[in-house]
Amino acid sequence: MIDLQSEIIEGGIEIDRVGIKGLSYPILVKDKLQGSQYTVAKINMYVNLPNHFRGAHMSRFLEILHQVGVYKINRKRIKLLLLNMKEILSAKAAHLEIFFPYFVKKPAPISKVEGLNEYQCGLYGSHDENNNFSLVLEVNAMVLNLCPCSRELSPNTSAHNQRGRATVKIKSGPLIWIEDVIEIIESSASSPIYSTLKRVDEKYVMDNAHNKPRFVEDIVREIAFKLTNLDGILWYCVECENFESIHNHNAYAMIEKGNHLLGSQ
Amino acid sequence: MIDLQSEIIEGGIEIDRVGIKGLSYPILVKDKLQGSQYTVAKINMYVNLPNHFRGAHMSRFLEILHQVGVYKINRKRIKLLLLNMKEILSAKAAHLEIFFPYFVKKPAPISKVEGLNEYQCGLYGSHDENNNFSLVLEVNAMVLNLCPCSRELSPNTSAHNQRGRATVKIKSGPLIWIEDVIEIIESSASSPIYSTLKRVDEKYVMDNAHNKPRFVEDIVREIAFKLTNLDGILWYCVECENFESIHNHNAYAMIEKGNHLLGSQ
Amino acid sequence: MIDLQSEIIEGGIEIDRVGIKGLSYPILVKDKLQGSQYTVAKINMYVNLPNHFRGAHMSRFLEILHQVGVYKINRKRIKLLLLNMKEILSAKAAHLEIFFPYFVKKPAPISKVEGLNEYQCGLYGSHDENNNFSLVLEVNAMVLNLCPCSRELSPNTSAHNQRGRATVKIKSGPLIWIEDVIEIIESSASSPIYSTLKRVDEKYVMDNAHNKPRFVEDIVREIAFKLTNLDGILWYCVECENFESIHNHNAYAMIEKGNHLLGSQ
Amino acid sequence: MIDLQSEIIEGGIEIDRVGIKGLSYPILVKDKLQGSQYTVAKINMYVNLPNHFRGAHMSRFLEILHQVGVYKINRKRIKLLLLNMKEILSAKAAHLEIFFPYFVKKPAPISKVEGLNEYQCGLYGSHDENNNFSLVLEVNAMVLNLCPCSRELSPNTSAHNQRGRATVKIKSGPLIWIEDVIEIIESSASSPIYSTLKRVDEKYVMDNAHNKPRFVEDIVREIAFKLTNLDGILWYCVECENFESIHNHNAYAMIEKGNHLLGSQ
Repeated sequence: MIDLQSEIIEGGIEIDRVGIKGLSYPILVKDKLQGSQYTVAKINMYVNLPNHFRGAHMSRFLEILHQVGVYKINRKRIKLLLLNMKEILSAKAAHLEIFFPYFVKKPAPISKVEGLNEYQCGLYGSHDENNNFSLVLEVNAMVLNLCPCSRELSPNTSAHNQRGRATVKIKSGPLIWIEDVIEIIESSASSPIYSTLKRVDEKYVMDNAHNKPRFVEDIVREIAFKLTNLDGILWYCVECENFESIHNHNAYAMIEKGNHLLGSQ
Repeated sequence: MIDLQSEIIEGGIEIDRVGIKGLSYPILVKDKLQGSQYTVAKINMYVNLPNHFRGAHMSRFLEILHQVGVYKINRKRIKLLLLNMKEILSAKAAHLEIFFPYFVKKPAPISKVEGLNEYQCGLYGSHDENNNFSLVLEVNAMVLNLCPCSRELSPNTSAHNQRGRATVKIKSGPLIWIEDVIEIIESSASSPIYSTLKRVDEKYVMDNAHNKPRFVEDIVREIAFKLTNLDGILWYCVECENFESIHNHNAYAMIEKGNHLLGSQ
Repeated sequence: MIDLQSEIIEGGIEIDRVGIKGLSYPILVKDKLQGSQYTVAKINMYVNLPNHFRGAHMSRFLEILHQVGVYKINRKRIKLLLLNMKEILSAKAAHLEIFFPYFVKKPAPISKVEGLNEYQCGLYGSHDENNNFSLVLEVNAMVLNLCPCSRELSPNTSAHNQRGRATVKIKSGPLIWIEDVIEIIESSASSPIYSTLKRVDEKYVMDNAHNKPRFVEDIVREIAFKLTNLDGILWYCVECENFESIHNHNAYAMIEKGNHLLGSQ
Repeated sequence: MIDLQSEIIEGGIEIDRVGIKGLSYPILVKDKLQGSQYTVAKINMYVNLPNHFRGAHMSRFLEILHQVGVYKINRKRIKLLLLNMKEILSAKAAHLEIFFPYFVKKPAPISKVEGLNEYQCGLYGSHDENNNFSLVLEVNAMVLNLCPCSRELSPNTSAHNQRGRATVKIKSGPLIWIEDVIEIIESSASSPIYSTLKRVDEKYVMDNAHNKPRFVEDIVREIAFKLTNLDGILWYCVECENFESIHNHNAYAMIEKGNHLLGSQ
């Protein structure tokens, strides 16, 4: 059968990324405490395309995913998928992006009633033309932030507080656990949030938050400071977006540090 | 040219709604204070299709919209669009849905600094086989709700408070202004929210909210009570969804009253 | 500690639904072929609230979910969750909504290369004040629809074709498998869609679709006709929305039949 | 009143961006043919924050927007907004992002029936610490792409075709009109899409598309080639994402060229 994709073209422009986007797929992710957990991912897979080839064989991305498998997704499995993409698609560079909800058991602070917290996570793997492998881990944690300014204005009544989303993207040499990034984020906010809170817990959470007010500026600085103390960090980007209770727009802050282009072999 | 849509089929099932969905379109909406305002809408247009016709002529929906126009959208213009849809598409019933952001000037409570608040609105018009015309107005207002339980637990510090979305859908005989529904919603929440607040305003908003705590249950009941006192209400549905600052899920309440099937001529 | 929710109020309005919305939760769903499959759900849980109570105890919804469990979600488990909600929250009616992606293995039609198809599904369970239990199953299947009109206009070249989403909601006495609803939908479209297609498969899919053109009107009628032949159907709603390749808006059709209020005991 | 944001802190980390995100706001945009058009935008406004200041005064962003105005948004007005942000917030760098739907009249190709096409657009303005001003224009156009491979496999029947979204981001010295970018995109796809098509138009569109099949790879290359021929381009990124009619995932390609960091004064 005809193979238009392999057609040789002249005067073409090299394409940075070509592939499949938005594929839903059940995966199994490594879990620090329980070994692994089932979840459902959105997956993007791209390779570069030299200037003389017309197209990439899209069905091969799916075949690679199906054959290599997405069980116990970790650093090693992602590298294996990228190497397969480079080989089977004759590409010099390969990129894999996996986004998924991740769940962690979290007892309420006083009553210890069990609950399950969801964190949206992402993995961005690349294997480039110089055989550098790099992996960025993204963790999103919803937190409670209480406004320091509002607290000063109304010290004996309620300061405005709201759900905020803190996002950490981090590129490191050694492995970093999702759970460890969550701990860094939650300890930097006015308070972690919980799925189940009894009255004693609700009081505890709010009293704590009242005594630990945080601007979006404060929380990204505190997270960035803690990340700087970790070993082997090559690059990070920390964001926080507060869904302000007093406005219909959000407050936002971002710090980026390091060299995004660095990778390891 | 061939006209497959007009093909007569046998043993067909009547289709309740057929038409176009998700059309983006700039419109001009009637405004209580300024006469009118420009905005951008998402529009759905449907007719019923008798069992013996194969299809509806989809391009006609667009032609009707373009010819009748969507300028100064109000009760009369919607009825005109529906009557055109029934006639030109030879249908017994027609339905038109228009969703759009609507802006209202709102000065800060103390400093009087000017701001603009956005309200997502909707209009659901129907003209049925008995020539009944009905129109549902939907208004979404983002509000601040402060938890009564949390306030009792921590009377001298911060209660948890959050952005919430209150949604009112209302079918009435006479015209009801978007601005009047907004007033009903905002006066029933712990506080309205604002786009611009100086420090004096922020203190005022939070002190007020602290003294007016509201569960989602409280706010839907208060809105429902006020709607009951309006003239000519045939049906309503009131919802409130709080994006809880202490959880990663939402609190929700809903009250529906009246006969959704009623219309006027 | 104070219990504001149990406060007795006067002149209150009964609230139709109060509870939690948008909770992310990992679940295990019954699967016709493999026994069960892991997935991640969005969950809503509501009860009614009599006019004399101020509020519902929101944390109890979470506790019920955690204690009853969401393993092997099926008719029986949903009924159990609803009965627990009624008892523990002292409510006359309870509602549970669970939305989740569901995966089915689907080999390519000719090459038989294995692939995995995603279907967004939903379960709407209710237990009302007359002890009627009802369960609505929702299945969304993405399909390929090829326009009959375009095919007549260009019989020897390409008719426009596009991805479409067909949605079936169905309330029945006996159990209906997700897989059986998928089969009804996919056999009514111009063609099913696949995650992995080799060239021989792509040719087969398009030749088939070319010979089976379908308007949105055709597909909802064909699905409705097949549903009518199933045993024990109390109510259904069939929708199809085509993301037209020639427009930036969608074509839509809907048929609803039966009595939505019916339930079984 | 207390001013916590102006508090001097020690050992702080400089924050790259702090400000407001997701503000809805009605704007007036310059239009090549009609002078200007009303639309509704989502706006983000950020400044950098030196290491010794605790926070930014968020309400000032709103005041600047309200005072400078967002009427006849163009290069000059964006520069003015950025300069105001730098001055009033005492910042060395300022960033403004504006996203909005933009409408262009587009007659059907044969019948000349009038229609309105929507294009999602964006403007990313920055004024950095070296007083470099840069502006990126983003234009998204929905197009029809017909698969070259499928066309070869089924030359006398239907090739699969689908709606695709082509995205061009471009940084240039001189002004580039949205209309000119749309023309470049639409002439590079299998066919433009239209809001209103009569049967003669539908035949024309599909016959044309059948004779101009395009992979995502083809369209991004063709757009990139045409952009290279424009004057004063400093950087561009071209993407295309096809919502494949035969799959439930998308095909994607991207080319990026030039120096993203370049700006003009």
